[in-house]
Amino acid sequence: MAGADQKLTELGLILPAPLALPPGVVLRFPWVNVRGKRAYISGHGPQNLDGSVAGPFGSVGEELSVEQGHEAARLTALSMLASLKRTLGSLDRIAGWCRVHGMVNCVPGFAQTPAVLNGFTDLILEVFGPEIGAHARTAIGVAALPHNMPVEIEAELLLNGE
Amino acid sequence: MAGADQKLTELGLILPAPLALPPGVVLRFPWVNVRGKRAYISGHGPQNLDGSVAGPFGSVGEELSVEQGHEAARLTALSMLASLKRTLGSLDRIAGWCRVHGMVNCVPGFAQTPAVLNGFTDLILEVFGPEIGAHARTAIGVAALPHNMPVEIEAELLLNGE
Amino acid sequence: MAGADQKLTELGLILPAPLALPPGVVLRFPWVNVRGKRAYISGHGPQNLDGSVAGPFGSVGEELSVEQGHEAARLTALSMLASLKRTLGSLDRIAGWCRVHGMVNCVPGFAQTPAVLNGFTDLILEVFGPEIGAHARTAIGVAALPHNMPVEIEAELLLNGE
Repeated sequence: MAGADQKLTELGLILPAPLALPPGVVLRFPWVNVRGKRAYISGHGPQNLDGSVAGPFGSVGEELSVEQGHEAARLTALSMLASLKRTLGSLDRIAGWCRVHGMVNCVPGFAQTPAVLNGFTDLILEVFGPEIGAHARTAIGVAALPHNMPVEIEAELLLNGE
Repeated sequence: MAGADQKLTELGLILPAPLALPPGVVLRFPWVNVRGKRAYISGHGPQNLDGSVAGPFGSVGEELSVEQGHEAARLTALSMLASLKRTLGSLDRIAGWCRVHGMVNCVPGFAQTPAVLNGFTDLILEVFGPEIGAHARTAIGVAALPHNMPVEIEAELLLNGE
Repeated sequence: MAGADQKLTELGLILPAPLALPPGVVLRFPWVNVRGKRAYISGHGPQNLDGSVAGPFGSVGEELSVEQGHEAARLTALSMLASLKRTLGSLDRIAGWCRVHGMVNCVPGFAQTPAVLNGFTDLILEVFGPEIGAHARTAIGVAALPHNMPVEIEAELLLNGE
């Protein structure tokens, strides 16, 4: 069976460059933190291929439609895979997705956070398949996100090996 | 000492049926994801015994009182135990609760999220006792939850065995 | 190299007393929950040295400035270190920080949650150094927090030993 690295190529998916920070800004935490056999992934958002934060910005249900939120979640998955590839070398080191915590910037009472998060889940399942890709998931609506991004997602993975 | 399965019976607690999804809706993530010795639990909400999402719906402090929020958190615990029982076969496979992340749909500034979450914590401690049942807990108020549920809770467990 | 306990003394940092609860209030969950080699830390907030919850209270961007939010996050780090020291005996039992989930009580659209959370991250890195202290991080804005605190932070750690 094709591994995740190969699958990424087959699907023609292109991963973005590292997040471009404004001059003088230093990031004081890693995007992926490996501890023992687990990889803890910092909150990611949608990026353009050049590494800049991808718009549109704002809250889903107001500035963005559900479809635009779904696309932002899909871009967030690509952004996370890019970080994982840089840290781990290969996506095939991933033995299994554990948990995904999805946060949607939205107006109070917005009930469609799961539909937004499916943009993330669908891509992960496409690349990793139903066994390695399976993840417990939570989808909530929050008042605010960094850069006024529409979506932010954090996750935890189990790695192969010792 | 009585195990959690037996305790559930002694307390006369009845677990709900699996979440009833609208026709055509497919859930693309598992309610419980076992990876190694850990079980990652997706965000759960209150359910009726027939598996439908249980009302009342809306935000605590507005549509719901604190007491109603507390009851929703208690129903969420039963909903989670039902998922665990279906996935693990027996609740006695659980060696210890690790963390519980509780999210309350509420108005800005609502300060009683811990009182709401106690509906969950109290039931878990009753069923599992103070050692296995002990869990780190976070209780926050959020702008929106799926189905406009008043409460959503995710958790992580340690399992017995190898 | 100096351990975290020694570093704390060198920096002249003083840890607060346990959270002072109102009479009759019993906390039904531990501040730190050790399961195997992992420590799961409940949501902490800023405290005064006597254990009371530290003000100012309210949402960042409205009642509090970003600088005040930053200071609240720094106090939250000290509050968490106090809980860890009480539970573990020594901070030197910590092999590595895994993940930090930071929640800022803020107005909708507040985009500076990372600047607030840096108050936490900077102190952890000062005390533990860049290897043990490194943590995956998420910074979100939420509608409400217990006690109307401006910041609440939960975390997960890897411990030394078997």
